[in-house]
Amino acid sequence: MIVHPKIPEKGVSAEELEKILRKIGDERYHVHHPFHKLMNAGDLTKAQLQAWALNRYCYQFIIPQKDAVILSRSEDPEFRREWRKRIIDHDGGEGDEGGIARWLKLAEGLEVDAELVKSRKQALAATRFAVQAYLDLVSQSSLLVAVASSLTEMFSGAAISVRVPAMLKRYEYITEDTLAYFIPRLHQAPRDAEFALAYVKEHAQTPALQQQVVDALVEKCDILWVMLDALYHAYVEPGHIPPGAFRPDLN
Amino acid sequence: MIVHPKIPEKGVSAEELEKILRKIGDERYHVHHPFHKLMNAGDLTKAQLQAWALNRYCYQFIIPQKDAVILSRSEDPEFRREWRKRIIDHDGGEGDEGGIARWLKLAEGLEVDAELVKSRKQALAATRFAVQAYLDLVSQSSLLVAVASSLTEMFSGAAISVRVPAMLKRYEYITEDTLAYFIPRLHQAPRDAEFALAYVKEHAQTPALQQQVVDALVEKCDILWVMLDALYHAYVEPGHIPPGAFRPDLN
Repeated sequence: MIVHPKIPEKGVSAEELEKILRKIGDERYHVHHPFHKLMNAGDLTKAQLQAWALNRYCYQFIIPQKDAVILSRSEDPEFRREWRKRIIDHDGGEGDEGGIARWLKLAEGLEVDAELVKSRKQALAATRFAVQAYLDLVSQSSLLVAVASSLTEMFSGAAISVRVPAMLKRYEYITEDTLAYFIPRLHQAPRDAEFALAYVKEHAQTPALQQQVVDALVEKCDILWVMLDALYHAYVEPGHIPPGAFRPDLN
Repeated sequence: MIVHPKIPEKGVSAEELEKILRKIGDERYHVHHPFHKLMNAGDLTKAQLQAWALNRYCYQFIIPQKDAVILSRSEDPEFRREWRKRIIDHDGGEGDEGGIARWLKLAEGLEVDAELVKSRKQALAATRFAVQAYLDLVSQSSLLVAVASSLTEMFSGAAISVRVPAMLKRYEYITEDTLAYFIPRLHQAPRDAEFALAYVKEHAQTPALQQQVVDALVEKCDILWVMLDALYHAYVEPGHIPPGAFRPDLN
């Protein structure tokens, strides 16, 4: 049974806090979800991968908005200089199309229409609600909590370095071009995670704040997990695509 | 394929609008969800009914808050006099324990601990996100949209009048006392729906407003559907209970 960690009354050291956060990732990060296990094993159909790309786009879409909210809440130019890199990574700039554009290429590589993906109209309602929960979390909580909610990046580098070769090997129609989104993430995610983790370790100075950090990471893991639960239910279990959602067989 | 209705450019009559809204209910109201079909057929286990009661409590819990938001947004004492009945129905008053308390009795009748239910801690994250989406909808849209989002009540009377006898007949441990929540709903829901429908028909005076009403009802149906999708995935499909969620076998 996976337990929601409770910070003891007298608090923990910064190093112990990091250990607790890493354990949350070991247990709750969406790399452990059955949908991702099927993906890495080569056991998803192209239609299922299309549904994944289309729904996950909704998450990619809000990332720079989420990061702009965090920027807007910081009073420290040094923090903002570091954090704005995330927005640049996703939105692109001179000589770089950016992560959102690369995600659309991934969708197109899976032969799902980019305009349909961009419209977000056929995404699962659960995806929309989870993504909104992420925006709410960074908007309505403290800056510390907002930063802590980004700590899933601590676990994404390792996940990507398994996923990319697995997908290239096991899906003959997937090329390196299709997966181009993930390549810069291999250095961006650890860089971002390192900064956010150092921030959290420095600023979570009371047991109550440490608990908030723990809760934020659990909540963020829940958000990612809900998105995969919904995908699994709709597209892996037969016959459960909700009304109005993407129907691979009709597109 | 279920289509999201589009209001024609020149708009529709109030009667046509009502027909469109009723069709949305025919297609998308959660009474058509596989989880409810299993429930009425007597095919859910007590553990699955426990998970349903525990999660649905999160929805019951916010109903008076949601209705208070709507109250707070109306400038018309007559509207508020009518709408406040909903809060009284759920919160209770002299000689009436109210709908929320009756829902807790339903949970207790299913042998799930009322304190656990009230804590909402083991509810599915998808339930929390869907419930928050409902609060967001009534808080962040127009009063017309907020009222329209309540129109699922148009379909709940018929659903309850099938569900109650079906459950009494098919689950030997379910008594009339357990289902006491539903009995007052049989007259409250149609009363509330009639008022809300008349309001919507009167105030949706342009094609754009009519479309907003349609969209609001679709969104509300999506909210209810997401809750049942998540229940089905976690508790009907074996092996998919998300980290941290209610485990009937451990309670």
